[in-house]
Amino acid sequence: MGLFSKSIQTLDDLFVHTLQDMYYAEQQIAKSLPKMIDKATDPQLKQALQSHLGETQNHVKRLEQVFKLHDLKPKAVNCPAIDGIIDEAQDIAGDVGDKEVLDAAIIAAAQAVEHYEISRYGTLVAWSRQLGREDCASILQKTLDEEKAADRKLTAVAESKVNLKAVS
Amino acid sequence: MGLFSKSIQTLDDLFVHTLQDMYYAEQQIAKSLPKMIDKATDPQLKQALQSHLGETQNHVKRLEQVFKLHDLKPKAVNCPAIDGIIDEAQDIAGDVGDKEVLDAAIIAAAQAVEHYEISRYGTLVAWSRQLGREDCASILQKTLDEEKAADRKLTAVAESKVNLKAVS
Repeated sequence: MGLFSKSIQTLDDLFVHTLQDMYYAEQQIAKSLPKMIDKATDPQLKQALQSHLGETQNHVKRLEQVFKLHDLKPKAVNCPAIDGIIDEAQDIAGDVGDKEVLDAAIIAAAQAVEHYEISRYGTLVAWSRQLGREDCASILQKTLDEEKAADRKLTAVAESKVNLKAVS
Repeated sequence: MGLFSKSIQTLDDLFVHTLQDMYYAEQQIAKSLPKMIDKATDPQLKQALQSHLGETQNHVKRLEQVFKLHDLKPKAVNCPAIDGIIDEAQDIAGDVGDKEVLDAAIIAAAQAVEHYEISRYGTLVAWSRQLGREDCASILQKTLDEEKAADRKLTAVAESKVNLKAVS
């Protein structure tokens, strides 16, 4: 963008832009999770992803609440990061020929998604507190906690069985 | 890819593919960090990014060591995830008109990069242990520890000063 078209001038503008980025990202994740669930074989992995799909749909609603508290209509902006992370997940899933190795690849791909979200929600919570918006921060913190829990659950499924089955 | 062209059949194949993905990613990060350093204003932020650039160059060398231990020549494969994360960082940096808000945006972008790496190196460490390659795991664990430390340092710089200056 040119010198006179820079649309972000304040931390509040940056906060809103990042909310819009996550509004797009959560919707893309909600679209891609059913494909991952379909490709997964291990029942515990399928269940973990299914449960996270429900959470993801709720994360979209929470973002809508934050937009409302901010007196804004929910709006999505393109998020090349989540597009790239999801493209990579689909590429790798298409390249794996063994079902048990594919489960390990799906967990890794899902954890890359979780970490992107952990990073963005961590930032959004910090910025909303800095902006004096504890009301927004407490909603975003709930989602951050769920993303961290989903990541830990995936690690547990990987380490307790999926990785073991993938080398057997 | 078609049914008969799936190139990944074992956890070892998947491990090597992910090493190649990170070999590309670390090189792209090493190329993009100088641009972020150049755009940053806060001296402590500039210094944190500069120090992480040195670490990143060392992470490339560590990946080369792991390839060697694995009797493979270092090879990079495209990593749409890191391309997307870096594209998004450049887009946002181009959209911010205020120097102090730009510092907050740069930290957020750098933490998205760190979290991608934390996710991938966490996976690589777990897989190399599962494959009985403690020699590879211990090298990759060093990088994982540095990525986590870099992320914590960025949080500290954000919370101790950059976010405060961005709202002032």
